[in-house]
Amino acid sequence: MSTPHDSHREFLLSLSALARAHWKDAPASHAYDSKAGTGFDPVTALDRQIEATLRSTIGAAFPDDGIWGEEEGWTNEGAVRNWSLDPVDGTRALICGLPSWAVLVGLIEEGRHVAGMIDLPALDEVFVATGGCTSVNGRAATTSGCTALGQARLATTDPFLFVDAEYDAFVRIRESCRVARYGLDALAYARVATGGLDLVVESGLKRHDLDALVAVVRGAGGHIGDWTGGEDWDGGRIVAAASRPLYESAVELLSR
Amino acid sequence: MSTPHDSHREFLLSLSALARAHWKDAPASHAYDSKAGTGFDPVTALDRQIEATLRSTIGAAFPDDGIWGEEEGWTNEGAVRNWSLDPVDGTRALICGLPSWAVLVGLIEEGRHVAGMIDLPALDEVFVATGGCTSVNGRAATTSGCTALGQARLATTDPFLFVDAEYDAFVRIRESCRVARYGLDALAYARVATGGLDLVVESGLKRHDLDALVAVVRGAGGHIGDWTGGEDWDGGRIVAAASRPLYESAVELLSR
Repeated sequence: MSTPHDSHREFLLSLSALARAHWKDAPASHAYDSKAGTGFDPVTALDRQIEATLRSTIGAAFPDDGIWGEEEGWTNEGAVRNWSLDPVDGTRALICGLPSWAVLVGLIEEGRHVAGMIDLPALDEVFVATGGCTSVNGRAATTSGCTALGQARLATTDPFLFVDAEYDAFVRIRESCRVARYGLDALAYARVATGGLDLVVESGLKRHDLDALVAVVRGAGGHIGDWTGGEDWDGGRIVAAASRPLYESAVELLSR
Repeated sequence: MSTPHDSHREFLLSLSALARAHWKDAPASHAYDSKAGTGFDPVTALDRQIEATLRSTIGAAFPDDGIWGEEEGWTNEGAVRNWSLDPVDGTRALICGLPSWAVLVGLIEEGRHVAGMIDLPALDEVFVATGGCTSVNGRAATTSGCTALGQARLATTDPFLFVDAEYDAFVRIRESCRVARYGLDALAYARVATGGLDLVVESGLKRHDLDALVAVVRGAGGHIGDWTGGEDWDGGRIVAAASRPLYESAVELLSR
């Protein structure tokens, strides 16, 4: 018998197939524009094409749902159930020909993250979390279970994004962990879900950067929250860990 | 008619096949030891197996040649022609389940880098440079040709490896470039060779980390040297660029 979880899983996999079809049309394109505003914020034709396709597919299937996307903003803001889209997480990686970019889809119902997808087309890995369980290419995904900071493999995307006290807090974490890796975007959270990494500490994340990750990390047995032990998803300061004790140790050190 | 370049190419590709056979036996192993000495310096069974196989294969084919390898040191030190081996460049990436680790082989004749291989098994890409030309999976590899720092996509493996004045010099480079990526090891140089990245600046590299890269970057039309415009390969401070003008701009900024 089919359950709502099955139908979410099938629907998310159909979104992955649509996104990959755009990528396969132009897999090696490094062309990009920089968005208006301060600093360098690249966007490619792939970002725009994937978001347009995901929005129209979700809108046709679930016309009453809200949709938030990085490139086009809100449709049906204030709905009970909302889809959060990052068509290309890691556009910087994409324009550098690196395989860590991802298509992110998060599903939020009455404020709870009920499903998520991290699709890594260049690595041919799709993570889907529904009904409290995470799979990667159809197999169950499980964290390392690591509980000790001193054994943890840490990642953050760009250590230069931390400012002032945030930077000091990150250095405390880095110096406590066994090894640190950089530049991974959503791939870091995917690797927490498969046991390659144990801890991710980041700041400055937007909702479309993180909404897909929450269910994926939790469904693999990991713990994810903000830097203070809560769930302030709008603040952008995120810790994802292979276990709850590891998350709590990280939060304790970050807030010192 | 077969040339010496063809035979080097075929021989390097045979080394790639032997290395990948070890990896396919245990592709998802995260088990590692830490080498003796200060700090965390991981080594896996794969590092040891690949180096042993490469050494015995090279030694059988070219018994008079010298071989330097990261794990086992010198054989025939002082030979006219020398092979430089890093069986797993990016062991930290490997134990974190990340795809950027590489098998590196460099060939040096009377001090000149005459051939090189960057094999990226997890990405199924093998770069081979012989006779002044670089190929990736059999197709010609070419840099972006970028000449302007302000348009350059920069990479370095770990910005925390730079100390004191080195760090200040790196920050000058980073602030001059369009975008910076981290954590790539030899994949950064491979992406310079295919035009995804434009500039790599690193310090603390050992000969086995860099000997394979020199011919690969040059054979794709790029320029590689030390931080002062020379070729002090033993000093470990390396700049690789998509073009000679970009290399010279970087060196000018590093030495300010």
